[in-house]
Amino acid sequence: MQAVDYLAVAEKAMQQIKKGAFLTVKAGNSLNTMAIGWATIGYCWRKPIFMIAVRDSRHTFGIIEKATDFTVSIPSGNMHAQVMYCGTKSGRDVDKFKECSLVPFDAQKVTSPILDIAGLHVECNIIYKSAMDPHFLDIGCDAAIYPEKDYHTLYFGDILACYER
Amino acid sequence: MQAVDYLAVAEKAMQQIKKGAFLTVKAGNSLNTMAIGWATIGYCWRKPIFMIAVRDSRHTFGIIEKATDFTVSIPSGNMHAQVMYCGTKSGRDVDKFKECSLVPFDAQKVTSPILDIAGLHVECNIIYKSAMDPHFLDIGCDAAIYPEKDYHTLYFGDILACYER
Repeated sequence: MQAVDYLAVAEKAMQQIKKGAFLTVKAGNSLNTMAIGWATIGYCWRKPIFMIAVRDSRHTFGIIEKATDFTVSIPSGNMHAQVMYCGTKSGRDVDKFKECSLVPFDAQKVTSPILDIAGLHVECNIIYKSAMDPHFLDIGCDAAIYPEKDYHTLYFGDILACYER
Repeated sequence: MQAVDYLAVAEKAMQQIKKGAFLTVKAGNSLNTMAIGWATIGYCWRKPIFMIAVRDSRHTFGIIEKATDFTVSIPSGNMHAQVMYCGTKSGRDVDKFKECSLVPFDAQKVTSPILDIAGLHVECNIIYKSAMDPHFLDIGCDAAIYPEKDYHTLYFGDILACYER
C-alpha cells in the first residue's frame, strides 16, 4: 500500500495556486483582479471544469455576478508581493493593476483579460454558480472560515483555453 | 506560447475517473456503489477537496444524504464491464457487489468502505453539499445533461486519505 499525496495528481496547477494566483474578471467597463489560493479542477457536465470561489464581500463579487467568464493567471515565478497586495487591498479603493504593475492582456476565448505575466493561464466560461448555503456546511469549517458570515459563491468555469506564456 | 492540456495537471486522477470509477457510500446498514465519471479535485476551505455529483434520482442519493463520508475507488486496470453494469443498474434492483464480484474493504479513515480492487482510493468526509439550482445553470448544459430534470447534488469531500493498493 503506497501513500499518494492527492496534490501530486493536480500538482502543477494546484501547488502553484496555493502560493497565490490571480482571478481576473471583466463585465462591461468594470475590471478587477484579486488573489486566490483556492480552486478545484476536473471534469463535470461533460466539460473540463475549473471551480473558483469569491466571497460576497469582495469588490470582484459585484463584477463576476454580471460577467459571463473569468480568467485565472497562475504565476510561474515569485509574485508574492503582488499576491499579498491584491489579496489585502480592494479594487474599490486602489487601482491594483497600476499599483502592482499588472497589465491586462487580451484573452484568446473570453471577454475577461488574462494578466501579462509568465505562468499558466486558464480561460473559463461560467457554466454554473452556486451561492454557499451555510446550512449544509461543516460547523467547524463555518466557524473557522466564515466568522464574518461572508460566504463564498462558487463559480464553475468551462475551461475554454489553458496555456503557458 | 505553449498549449497545455488542462487534464495534464490532474492527469492521474481525472483521466482514470473519466474511464469510470466507483463511488461507494455507507449510511447505517445501507451500502451502495455506483459508477462515476465526473469529479473535481483541488484545495478549498483550507482543505484538500474532492467533489463528486449524484443525481437525485439515484439509489445512492438516498444513502449519501444520510452519510457523513464517501470513498472513490479508481481502478488502475480495465473494469469497463463492471463500470457499465454499475452505471446502468440500480442498487434498488440488484446487488451490484454480488453481480460484479466487487468486495467492500474497510477504509482507513471513514465509515464508507473502499472497493477491494487495484487502483487509487480516496476517502472523504463530506464538508459541504449543494443541490443544484437550474436557475444558475447554463441553458445548453441544462438541456443536454438534464432532459429529465433530475439534477445533481454536489458533494465536497475533505480528503482524509488517498492511496494506491
